[in-house]
Amino acid sequence: MCIYKLDLGLTFWFRGASSAVNMGDFKHLVIAKFKEGVVVEEVLKGMEKLVSDIDAVKSFEWGQDIESQEMLRQGFTHAFLMTFNKKEDFTAFVSHPNHVEFSATFSAAIEKIVLLDFPAVLAKAPK
Amino acid sequence: MCIYKLDLGLTFWFRGASSAVNMGDFKHLVIAKFKEGVVVEEVLKGMEKLVSDIDAVKSFEWGQDIESQEMLRQGFTHAFLMTFNKKEDFTAFVSHPNHVEFSATFSAAIEKIVLLDFPAVLAKAPK
Repeated sequence: MCIYKLDLGLTFWFRGASSAVNMGDFKHLVIAKFKEGVVVEEVLKGMEKLVSDIDAVKSFEWGQDIESQEMLRQGFTHAFLMTFNKKEDFTAFVSHPNHVEFSATFSAAIEKIVLLDFPAVLAKAPK
Repeated sequence: MCIYKLDLGLTFWFRGASSAVNMGDFKHLVIAKFKEGVVVEEVLKGMEKLVSDIDAVKSFEWGQDIESQEMLRQGFTHAFLMTFNKKEDFTAFVSHPNHVEFSATFSAAIEKIVLLDFPAVLAKAPK
């Protein structure tokens, strides 16, 4: 599931519609629907252990949809968002043996998935 | 595209695999693929104006996938993530006239979309 291209990091300033915003962080976003019978809490425990064990992961947030319409959710139930200081940290995470091992477990547990990896544009910063 | 149920906010403490984590923030996640011919920069300008005009939006980040495999990306190209202090702020945003107006424009520009709305569990906080 997780063979990625290695690439150079990308950090620069982007002038948005109204103001300059930082493009430092790199994000790894996964949205998933789990197979029937999967104990999601167990998968989550594994994922929390994975990110806590690997320093390259700056922060990790996840959530279970409770609000959107089924038509817009399209069967997906969970979002997982990992943040890295730079793209090199992301590539280090991806090739880390713990991640390779966890990816096999995770792949077996999911019915469908979408994965996006991108430099984040912070267009509105928290006050 | 954007008729949501109104609901009471939900803020509590969740004991994760290893530690207690705050479930305060509420997230509105959109992943999208734009129709051919759409000037994405124009849509982004509209979205940046929207979130900057509405105080209920705490922060807004977006990104364009540059890394994941096409098989895992499944045609989606962009992720948009809005953060709210609480779910009530999210529902206020959704029903705001500017959002209703922008949603019509956005819907016309996209080929496909997945939308997830959830209380965020911060399982690993930035140091």
